[in-house]
Amino acid sequence: MNTGALNLVNTALHAGVEVCFANPGTTEMPIVAALDHVPGMRVVLGLFEGVCTGAADGWARMMGRPAATLLHLGPGLANSLANLHNARRARTPVINWIGDHATRHLPFDAPLTSDIAALTGSVGWTRTVTSAGEMAEASFDAVRAALGPPGRVASLIIPSECQWESCLEPLFVPMPSVLRKEIPGSAIYEAAHLLRKGRAGILLGGNALTVRGLNAAARVAAATDCGVWIETFPSRQECGRNLPKFSALPYFPEPAREALANITALVLAGAREPVSFFAYPDQPSRLAPENATLHTLADPDAGVDATLALESLAQELNAPAVTVVSRMTPAFVPNGQPLDADILCRAMAAFTPENAIVVNEAATTGLTWNVVHASNAAPHTMLFLTGGAIGQGLPNALGAALACPDRRVIAFQADGSGLYTLQALWSMARESADITVVVCANRRYRILQTELQRAGIIQPGPKAQSLTDLTQPVIDWTALAKGFGMPACSVHTDSELADSLMRSLVEPGPSLIEAVLV
Amino acid sequence: MNTGALNLVNTALHAGVEVCFANPGTTEMPIVAALDHVPGMRVVLGLFEGVCTGAADGWARMMGRPAATLLHLGPGLANSLANLHNARRARTPVINWIGDHATRHLPFDAPLTSDIAALTGSVGWTRTVTSAGEMAEASFDAVRAALGPPGRVASLIIPSECQWESCLEPLFVPMPSVLRKEIPGSAIYEAAHLLRKGRAGILLGGNALTVRGLNAAARVAAATDCGVWIETFPSRQECGRNLPKFSALPYFPEPAREALANITALVLAGAREPVSFFAYPDQPSRLAPENATLHTLADPDAGVDATLALESLAQELNAPAVTVVSRMTPAFVPNGQPLDADILCRAMAAFTPENAIVVNEAATTGLTWNVVHASNAAPHTMLFLTGGAIGQGLPNALGAALACPDRRVIAFQADGSGLYTLQALWSMARESADITVVVCANRRYRILQTELQRAGIIQPGPKAQSLTDLTQPVIDWTALAKGFGMPACSVHTDSELADSLMRSLVEPGPSLIEAVLV
Repeated sequence: MNTGALNLVNTALHAGVEVCFANPGTTEMPIVAALDHVPGMRVVLGLFEGVCTGAADGWARMMGRPAATLLHLGPGLANSLANLHNARRARTPVINWIGDHATRHLPFDAPLTSDIAALTGSVGWTRTVTSAGEMAEASFDAVRAALGPPGRVASLIIPSECQWESCLEPLFVPMPSVLRKEIPGSAIYEAAHLLRKGRAGILLGGNALTVRGLNAAARVAAATDCGVWIETFPSRQECGRNLPKFSALPYFPEPAREALANITALVLAGAREPVSFFAYPDQPSRLAPENATLHTLADPDAGVDATLALESLAQELNAPAVTVVSRMTPAFVPNGQPLDADILCRAMAAFTPENAIVVNEAATTGLTWNVVHASNAAPHTMLFLTGGAIGQGLPNALGAALACPDRRVIAFQADGSGLYTLQALWSMARESADITVVVCANRRYRILQTELQRAGIIQPGPKAQSLTDLTQPVIDWTALAKGFGMPACSVHTDSELADSLMRSLVEPGPSLIEAVLV
Repeated sequence: MNTGALNLVNTALHAGVEVCFANPGTTEMPIVAALDHVPGMRVVLGLFEGVCTGAADGWARMMGRPAATLLHLGPGLANSLANLHNARRARTPVINWIGDHATRHLPFDAPLTSDIAALTGSVGWTRTVTSAGEMAEASFDAVRAALGPPGRVASLIIPSECQWESCLEPLFVPMPSVLRKEIPGSAIYEAAHLLRKGRAGILLGGNALTVRGLNAAARVAAATDCGVWIETFPSRQECGRNLPKFSALPYFPEPAREALANITALVLAGAREPVSFFAYPDQPSRLAPENATLHTLADPDAGVDATLALESLAQELNAPAVTVVSRMTPAFVPNGQPLDADILCRAMAAFTPENAIVVNEAATTGLTWNVVHASNAAPHTMLFLTGGAIGQGLPNALGAALACPDRRVIAFQADGSGLYTLQALWSMARESADITVVVCANRRYRILQTELQRAGIIQPGPKAQSLTDLTQPVIDWTALAKGFGMPACSVHTDSELADSLMRSLVEPGPSLIEAVLV
């Protein structure tokens, strides 16, 4: 018998959805059963729904096409929502299959009933299925919606009778090709004009941060002497010593405004207008100078290919090819010193293997890595916390590792944010994913301590201190990893760190290194 | 200088809000600073927002008045939402203070911007503050909204400039008294009439489940020979061998319908009409017989006091006083047997100390406890998973323990659901809360295995199996507890269980017992 659930899964598989990160419940049982009847659809259990959506996001950032999640009603979706927020901000295609009560059961307002569409609507596209017969078409519709461009979060709300009732065959339609929007010639001429005038800058973001995009930006910079910056939290960026070296736009508004202070025009290539991450009483929201001309070369929200746009721009400027001389990675010579953020990042730069994927949710330590050290490391891909909702890192690493089984993934992880979705460690262990988790254990919410100081609270009282401190008791990450079935060690010196990194990075399967920072 | 943030906290404290479960970020810094200037407001850090709201829920279930949570923007709220769903279903008063970007910053759509009100609206009352001058009044407004009756989730969305700007003094208004709705005489006469006719039942729920309410129900039952049931997942219930023994309405629709099959009328005392938790293809949603008369004696959604209503009903029926003869707690004689759910529950019944609070999120094992064993234990209070969104138990236990420092709390916890918000273990350790966590480690989502069978999937395929199995790898709860700074042990036999329970239940501070079930 063909059911709505079978149609959902079969149609999605044929349209390019190969993996489902799931935490189902009773209202999704027909889909659970259907998964076993659709060979080729991989199923990965997450112990918490935020693991599922964060993994789907990481998978899609690497693959460029969506994974599915399977979520249990409104509360299951709620648990997954912060990482859907991140996917939305990163413009990642993600598909959610959310079970709901049978339609006839909804009016009785059973305990798990809630307004699911209010939540899905806050992160993207939603369709509520109303019959089993619709399921195949709705499944394909969600794939198309997720792909965009730009990529987005697409949610199907699926009452249980639409899953269990029988219906006609699934749709066997391949994944729709993503049609990038044409770049208008005028956008390119205007960018070239502004850059030729001098004192201009380019802000790179979104899909500009490919090897080709970065090289095109280097040609433009060489031809026009413009400044080039990279948005502070890109979704995905190619990094390393073989690529042109551009500065990330600083996180805090004061240095960001200072960096841009002398420009009269800013060309946006895959990035939005730069604004402050948070508002402060004495700082404006906008980061570019008030009188500067802002020009959108490639609008990320319109799904324009910023790499192509930069190449067209380089051509328009007759910019010659630029040869990047690969930089030296500074040798890491351990001598038993205690660890701090800088030493940790230097070790990371020295040991990150070529073609690694670095998932950067290391907060303050991660900014140090990104601004100073990543450009000296071997060529690698970085995924970053674009949406700011912490708890993305470990799930993202899981998804990226399953997408790219031939690449080493390094989850470069702050301790505070890592605790939001630490359940991901178990799925990493279950799937034997090749992941090295490096926990930057400064044992505090350091960014909040900085923010308290910025707010003029130089000597925080005991309550404010207690809200930014992660000792009392100290969190033992090796024990947490062991609890989830993952080998782990704790290191306190540069020598221990070097040893553990070298070992972990070549070992099959996941392991965790708690780097305790002074 | 008096600020909006100070007014928020001071006003809430004077209105009876004594504790704030917090996981703040940059947009809440002025409130963080204000907390140190308001002596008397306790502050408890949660490592994940679901811990904060679940703790606030547990605190309020014991105290009858709201705690506050402090949450960081939309994503922080999203992480907390499942336990707010539970609070909504339990009609618990909870106050959320949710920081937002400064109003002038919102149009720039910075990364963490999202539609916060869409989320708060899905769980209750919302007010968005628009100026610092409003903060005192808004703070009091939230207390009043949360108290109801019925109790509800009340959220304040607070742009950061409303926190940091200065304003006049806070309001010094005490907590408003909760005015329970008058019970119309006609509701009591009609209930008495239906019960006198015979073949009637009473369904107890909500605030009927006090010692007085249960005793009044026993008088009514003795006078009319009616059946008495308790709703399947009450928010708070007094339990134990000294109280009248009533059956909980079974969880699955078949036995629930069978239990009610012979009644011609059902009087609802603090409970809603009973409906199936989930819909099944061959089962109706309603559990009472189609022809039965449903009569609302005390509507929980209208904030009617069901205990008072039952006492009035007993009086109307001239029901004599009933003496409950305290039942014997069966002795627990361990003999080295491996543990199963029944043995575990018998040990719980034997060792639960008088006046304990048992937070029951033990899923299938918890139903065994509730249906069979709790009524034989020493007098205690039970908190239950009213809303069905798993991940409530550990946070609830934290909140209940802080509310009642003179009572032992037992977190009777399924392993699957415990993993949703395991971060609560750390806050328990930090606060030295007197909590015994008993993890019922059957190492599977047993309820889902049952549901698969109910859906006709007798031999689940490998994917369905993988989605209900929690081995591969086995989760080591003693390591997880150690990771969060809590002493723990793992027990496999009745003797080990008895030893560890006896030790843990008298030890100050928290500890965890992983009871591995065969």
